[in-house]
Amino acid sequence: MTEPSSAAPRPTLEAVAARAGVSRATVSRVVNGDVGVREVLAEKVRQAVAELGYVPNRAARSLVTRRHDAVAVVIAEPETRVFADPFFALQLRGISKELTSRDVQLVLLLTEGRDDHERVGRYLSGGHVDGALVFSLHLDDPLPGIIQGAGVPTVFGGRPGWPEGTVTSPYVDCDNRGGAREAVRHLVSLGRTRIAHITGALDQTSAVDRLDGFRDVLPDAGERFVAQGDFTPAGGERAMRELLDRVPDVDAVFAANDLTASGALRVLRERGKRVPEDVAVVGFDDMLAVAEQVDPPLTTVRQDIEEMGRLMARMLLARGELPTESVVLPTELVRRGSA
Amino acid sequence: MTEPSSAAPRPTLEAVAARAGVSRATVSRVVNGDVGVREVLAEKVRQAVAELGYVPNRAARSLVTRRHDAVAVVIAEPETRVFADPFFALQLRGISKELTSRDVQLVLLLTEGRDDHERVGRYLSGGHVDGALVFSLHLDDPLPGIIQGAGVPTVFGGRPGWPEGTVTSPYVDCDNRGGAREAVRHLVSLGRTRIAHITGALDQTSAVDRLDGFRDVLPDAGERFVAQGDFTPAGGERAMRELLDRVPDVDAVFAANDLTASGALRVLRERGKRVPEDVAVVGFDDMLAVAEQVDPPLTTVRQDIEEMGRLMARMLLARGELPTESVVLPTELVRRGSA
Repeated sequence: MTEPSSAAPRPTLEAVAARAGVSRATVSRVVNGDVGVREVLAEKVRQAVAELGYVPNRAARSLVTRRHDAVAVVIAEPETRVFADPFFALQLRGISKELTSRDVQLVLLLTEGRDDHERVGRYLSGGHVDGALVFSLHLDDPLPGIIQGAGVPTVFGGRPGWPEGTVTSPYVDCDNRGGAREAVRHLVSLGRTRIAHITGALDQTSAVDRLDGFRDVLPDAGERFVAQGDFTPAGGERAMRELLDRVPDVDAVFAANDLTASGALRVLRERGKRVPEDVAVVGFDDMLAVAEQVDPPLTTVRQDIEEMGRLMARMLLARGELPTESVVLPTELVRRGSA
Repeated sequence: MTEPSSAAPRPTLEAVAARAGVSRATVSRVVNGDVGVREVLAEKVRQAVAELGYVPNRAARSLVTRRHDAVAVVIAEPETRVFADPFFALQLRGISKELTSRDVQLVLLLTEGRDDHERVGRYLSGGHVDGALVFSLHLDDPLPGIIQGAGVPTVFGGRPGWPEGTVTSPYVDCDNRGGAREAVRHLVSLGRTRIAHITGALDQTSAVDRLDGFRDVLPDAGERFVAQGDFTPAGGERAMRELLDRVPDVDAVFAANDLTASGALRVLRERGKRVPEDVAVVGFDDMLAVAEQVDPPLTTVRQDIEEMGRLMARMLLARGELPTESVVLPTELVRRGSA
């Protein structure tokens, strides 16, 4: 099977049965690990399987065992976003390492957008995977409902935004609200008094929680100190321009993630503001490819994105005993030059 | 099915049969589009399917119809490489657009490396996809043999490196050798006389073909004018350092791809060489995220990577009539500041 020249058609169950001199049903039972086959026949089947290089058809097997040794990953974003935002690459890295260590295939289901989510649901319900890891959910997204309908065990990445108790699948998240509080408290401790926040996409709980953390520390900050971003550098640029127009003497910005902060830094430089002297900036995520590359390097709230992916995979594969408890990981402020 | 609160278990074939008052076999035949069912019964089944929101189990259906409306994409690189090299994102973009326009699910099978290729083969042969698109093959890679053994229709991205005729699956490639010739001829036309080449990973046909194109134009260039890279920026840096040590007055470099060129540009700047005055540089690919961002912008050989992906998907989905002819797309020199 490993020679490119072996262009022969794939051997069938029938061929194995003929070679072994047994019935098709006997081959099927041996291949599927049934114990009720006489050892002398089972041995003949195993020999024929080896000689022909037969690979059991898992579509057939799955009806019996419901094991595919494959896990789907669904990211509720268009594929262009999946490849543009290093957050997803990091989470997939953790998932891939964990699945590979257990010889389970990672099946990434890519889409162009939410119009394709029904099709994702059909694939999930089609008996192709043992479970699903689903992340980057949006509040009005039909995907969670579709996935519940598909009836596969699921672990969510990030807390889903619907009311407690409506979904039994566990999630893995970081302490978005606590991390945001720590970021804003740090800016306060530096003596900053006009602290603004650039939000993430507010149809995601991570963005809402980080905004709540900002308000926990600065309950009296006016609406003009909050500008809406979308977790992208371009969104960070737009929001930073808005803030500078509204609050020209703003002296600190807590950005909802590192990519947003990178956009804000670009606009601050363009407007002749020095960071951190004039405006201190704190991000969220601590993605090294961003936080260490920007100028100045970014003070940010670290979450272990790769570990979140690994943990999601581990929870899903603890099968039969899928934990009902979700997990919220701690965050940690990492100080660099920007604040 | 689209409500997050619908946590009810997925309806079974049995439930549909009970509701319709028919046998399980009858439901199965209706769901699988068999015509030999009396219309009055078929109508009862369709009604029960609608009322219960039943989704047919494709694992079962596939045994009958062998249609999954899903296509696997396999990139013979570790997942870290898949997310680090924009080439793959572009090719996937083309594939995703084409598959989505036909409501076919893109199933990206990620691995940590070639040790996982046997598992990919098991998934492909397991009745989960209608075919496979496979790219970034390496010469000593077991994957092509494994995929042939899996017995799914396949289209390769890039010409496979084994002898003509041993594999019947078609491929899509660009004219690597012709493009390389055009790049080197352009450097010659600029009056450059000490033209070097930084190769790609020479276990891939694209790298070998580009090296052959270089030699077509400069058959007398000595071995010291060729340094080995690996299609990454780091490989380009290493090779450029080697070249400058061996040929300090080198006045032009043809790099095997844009990422390699970006690494070479970094080293040239570091060594105080002006581009293009002292050393002219030409790349290959014309990935805008690289070629337009580097300083100076890169003269490069354009191949339409996204279109290659789209074409691969189109060929695979022209099923029953999978073309036996492979396709080689033309390339085009794009002139910018670096040469």
